[in-house]
Amino acid sequence: MKNGLLIVISGPSGAGKGTIYNKVLDKMPEIRKSISVTTRKPRAGEKEGVHYYFRTEEEYQRMIACGEFLETASVYNHHYGTPKAPVFQMLEAGDDVMFEIDNYGSRQIKRKYPEAVTIYVMPPSFEILKERLTARGTESEDSLKTRLGNSRRELSEYGNFDYIVFNDDADVAAEEVVSIINAEKCRMSRNEQEVKRLLAEK
Amino acid sequence: MKNGLLIVISGPSGAGKGTIYNKVLDKMPEIRKSISVTTRKPRAGEKEGVHYYFRTEEEYQRMIACGEFLETASVYNHHYGTPKAPVFQMLEAGDDVMFEIDNYGSRQIKRKYPEAVTIYVMPPSFEILKERLTARGTESEDSLKTRLGNSRRELSEYGNFDYIVFNDDADVAAEEVVSIINAEKCRMSRNEQEVKRLLAEK
Repeated sequence: MKNGLLIVISGPSGAGKGTIYNKVLDKMPEIRKSISVTTRKPRAGEKEGVHYYFRTEEEYQRMIACGEFLETASVYNHHYGTPKAPVFQMLEAGDDVMFEIDNYGSRQIKRKYPEAVTIYVMPPSFEILKERLTARGTESEDSLKTRLGNSRRELSEYGNFDYIVFNDDADVAAEEVVSIINAEKCRMSRNEQEVKRLLAEK
Repeated sequence: MKNGLLIVISGPSGAGKGTIYNKVLDKMPEIRKSISVTTRKPRAGEKEGVHYYFRTEEEYQRMIACGEFLETASVYNHHYGTPKAPVFQMLEAGDDVMFEIDNYGSRQIKRKYPEAVTIYVMPPSFEILKERLTARGTESEDSLKTRLGNSRRELSEYGNFDYIVFNDDADVAAEEVVSIINAEKCRMSRNEQEVKRLLAEK
């Protein structure tokens, strides 16, 4: 049984990684998502094991200490992390698993699982990134400036990724991600077992 | 201007590399082919610079001595070789160039141009390879045996290739090659210039 692929979609805020992630899932519905562990309280309608695994701070710290996370991050005093075990179970069952995650999370995943295929979604230009962030209309002048500064810093980390997809047209970009996934399945190193089986034939 | 891709399609006799090569060219007619240099005489209808570059033995040996080939091989006392200059001109103009070539030629190309993307077409099973070679009906029992022996030896060199495509269904296999080509265009290392241009924007 061939292991599934662990696919990471990342990109700076405003590049459109979420849109592309969802479009790829529409095209390849067999791809699995991972469920995060969090220390924040469930919101109305959120179900344990469906939206998140809800854990106490103590339990979360124990999981960190035991190396049970593929990546972990803190947002507004709450922790969010990806537990290794269920992801590795899916991969070993031959299922592909895809993440939408920031640079920091992507780096942690790649370090712990170098076979991960990491894809960085880029805006076609910095000008367009600016437009997209402005168009949200939810940002003050100051927070927009901070966000743009962050995006520029994040963009400069492109060298950590295996692939770069320019999101000019989200449908084209999603097709490129699909090609990357299909191509990665053909990598020599991922097919050695099958070739050896063939060569063992009389 | 981004360099084009040099794509090599290889595989043992009977695996169907020629069929897949042609199907990929149908799907991506923008891909260029290279024209070989040969020392054999032109056959009826063959045109200089269209089908081959026809050269004397002396001129061919001079080209070898000057390192003007990407790969070269001998078949029945005639030489066939791929001249570097026109291929590199096409790549530098941003055109993709695709070769259908044997293991030996593929190895020479990869050594001289490590950025080449090498794809190995495999039969789905050794049994099917045997059937395909038998079905040609043009082989004696002995020559079939030799050919099968060669195929097995060639197959065992799969580790030199970047990708492996199993040719169970030629249309599926050709689509996989198309995915590989599209994915390779997204490789981080092939997009650094564009990213740097974007990061240089104010």
